[in-house]
Amino acid sequence: MVVLTNIGLLATPLGSGPAAGDCQGEISLAQDQVLWIDGPQICGIYPRQKAPAPPTGATVVDAQGLLVTPGLIDCHTHLVFGGWRQHEVPLKLRGASYLEILQMGGGILDTVRQTRQWSEEDLYTRAVSFLDDMLRLGVTTAECKSGYGLSLSQELKQLQVQRKLQQTHSVEIVSTFLGAHAVPPEYEGRSDAYTQLVCQEILPAVAQGHWAEFCDVFCEEGVFTVSQSRKILQTGQELGLASKIHADEIAAIGGSQLAGELGAISAEHLIAISPEGIQALAAGGVIADLLPATSFYLKKPYAPARELIRQNVPVAIASDFNPGSCPSYNLQFAINLAYLYYSMTPEEILTAVTRNAAASLHRSHKIGTLEVGKQADLVIWNAKDLQTLCYRFGSNLVHTVFKKGKIV
Amino acid sequence: MVVLTNIGLLATPLGSGPAAGDCQGEISLAQDQVLWIDGPQICGIYPRQKAPAPPTGATVVDAQGLLVTPGLIDCHTHLVFGGWRQHEVPLKLRGASYLEILQMGGGILDTVRQTRQWSEEDLYTRAVSFLDDMLRLGVTTAECKSGYGLSLSQELKQLQVQRKLQQTHSVEIVSTFLGAHAVPPEYEGRSDAYTQLVCQEILPAVAQGHWAEFCDVFCEEGVFTVSQSRKILQTGQELGLASKIHADEIAAIGGSQLAGELGAISAEHLIAISPEGIQALAAGGVIADLLPATSFYLKKPYAPARELIRQNVPVAIASDFNPGSCPSYNLQFAINLAYLYYSMTPEEILTAVTRNAAASLHRSHKIGTLEVGKQADLVIWNAKDLQTLCYRFGSNLVHTVFKKGKIV
Repeated sequence: MVVLTNIGLLATPLGSGPAAGDCQGEISLAQDQVLWIDGPQICGIYPRQKAPAPPTGATVVDAQGLLVTPGLIDCHTHLVFGGWRQHEVPLKLRGASYLEILQMGGGILDTVRQTRQWSEEDLYTRAVSFLDDMLRLGVTTAECKSGYGLSLSQELKQLQVQRKLQQTHSVEIVSTFLGAHAVPPEYEGRSDAYTQLVCQEILPAVAQGHWAEFCDVFCEEGVFTVSQSRKILQTGQELGLASKIHADEIAAIGGSQLAGELGAISAEHLIAISPEGIQALAAGGVIADLLPATSFYLKKPYAPARELIRQNVPVAIASDFNPGSCPSYNLQFAINLAYLYYSMTPEEILTAVTRNAAASLHRSHKIGTLEVGKQADLVIWNAKDLQTLCYRFGSNLVHTVFKKGKIV
Repeated sequence: MVVLTNIGLLATPLGSGPAAGDCQGEISLAQDQVLWIDGPQICGIYPRQKAPAPPTGATVVDAQGLLVTPGLIDCHTHLVFGGWRQHEVPLKLRGASYLEILQMGGGILDTVRQTRQWSEEDLYTRAVSFLDDMLRLGVTTAECKSGYGLSLSQELKQLQVQRKLQQTHSVEIVSTFLGAHAVPPEYEGRSDAYTQLVCQEILPAVAQGHWAEFCDVFCEEGVFTVSQSRKILQTGQELGLASKIHADEIAAIGGSQLAGELGAISAEHLIAISPEGIQALAAGGVIADLLPATSFYLKKPYAPARELIRQNVPVAIASDFNPGSCPSYNLQFAINLAYLYYSMTPEEILTAVTRNAAASLHRSHKIGTLEVGKQADLVIWNAKDLQTLCYRFGSNLVHTVFKKGKIV
């Protein structure tokens, strides 16, 4: 038993499933609390004056009057990859576009080439170093997408690394299959044929081996069409994989509408989402996974978070960590961006990186809020209130992280 | 004696005084180097093959093939202050302007009120915690401006904290007097009278006690006019304090021209600088201290770094750490912003946070480059090249920091 005393402010969303709107009624901001942990689970939350005496033998941890929130959940990452893409810096400074870099053999296909070359062991070792740092930054659960293999054996290699991370790392990993992340070089100009390969060979193997819980697709102009995306996501659903979709990142070609049509759990990016797209997400109960650090790094517009919230679409926020469009896994920085550039309130932001992120990973029953019966994943912050998390940037404000009831 | 072996890439500007233009001819990028340190100083730099055997008794440190640069120099901070201003977050989300917040008793005068209330001891303890973190982020020297006291005794209290930091902390502190940071509440509507107080009472006392090396002024619409600024900076010069100036942050009222006229060592901010202002800096040999994280946090335009470089104005980059307009002291993040939002090259950026920052603090003879005879202030980075420092954001990429020849 662990008893966490002297919590200055316990800030947590309440309830399960995604929260829409301004979240004001579904969040608890309670001062001067005590939290009891039994094994991996929260077993009691009390105002200090009403807290029972700690049971004999309990470990008492003093939260020093600081802020405590649920552990952060990063619901969109690509954290298993080979190499980096820092050598594109001089090209970008000379004004080269994404397409020009791709044509020089750079861009995502550069990462595919390197990831294919790297051994499982090397990919694993590097991903561990990322996860160690993410944990220090307050992340206790992270989604991880495949999609740098783009062939049966190479996708399975990447998913095998993800499984090994699941089995060994303190950060809980949720696997998403993103075989349709790009058209591989062997299929250049033949995206229909690659779509067929994904549906007929790769997806069945992924499903059979229970390698992933979700199937995602990059639905975008010049990548996979709405019709190809529909085929892939429907095949995934038939095989038991719930749908996610990279939608409306560059052009609004109908990805959000497809998400609504198919009942996807989440639509991700949404920088260019149309009014019809927003309506489709609202009608379909789809969670909007927004990725502000990608807008920051690519100097693109920011997704219309306030409009999504106004229209009752639940909003989650994630890092999008990947070597090309977002070489950062710092979810605290995504929090700063959501305040400054999405104009979200501290309560909306906390919900977006905890409860709604959990919901977009089908983990609402277990994580994302601090309530009796949920997993004791939490962060003690070097801060007294939520405003400070939104306002201070560039410092790691984590004081202590608990995962499944243990200090990590 | 310390021998730093196995340096994968030693990246450093060369020479003293500020560097203008693209810096290409004044930077060394040498692979596979060995660096010798005698006490606080660099006493030898050799290509590995030509390096002598380490002297008997020398401590050998393996740089593991990583990048080594000079320690970062933060040449513009306000790091001694009371309180924070996170409670302005909800006001800002409701769209309140800087002026409206000031009228509600917030803004800089809120920080002045709190700094006046805090004890010297409390101000010192908190500044130490900032400096500890800055050091972990690779900063080995930092300028610190007064300006939250705004009376003789309160300015001296702040400068006394800065002196104690100078005497006790590993990060070297350079003190700037910024008594004309705002018009204090006691002088509301009487900025001429406050200017007179600064010139006749505060500045002479600051000079007599050698409390600061530089005199700065916030020359801005609604703060101090060009004429008041001239009076303050000239008085400072007569008393032996070199001039710095907060110029053209919001409106181009002539601050940069004043910097050129008075031969100021640096003009700082420059978001709104005019073509005439740029010419004045170039003609006067004034260093442009740019503060990209303030533009980021205030969602303002970015200073015209490329145009300043094109016109041969030396550019330095600093954090502007303060509780109102830039609650971050992360100079690595300023590096990321300089790449992404100033379109500066990695070589220009390195020069801006080392050699040119040293020059803007009159420290060129001692720090800012890694050359024999200079101080052994350096950083080993978890990176192999300068591109990576510009490209990866959100992680602390520091591996090891040396200050005056010692690992800190």
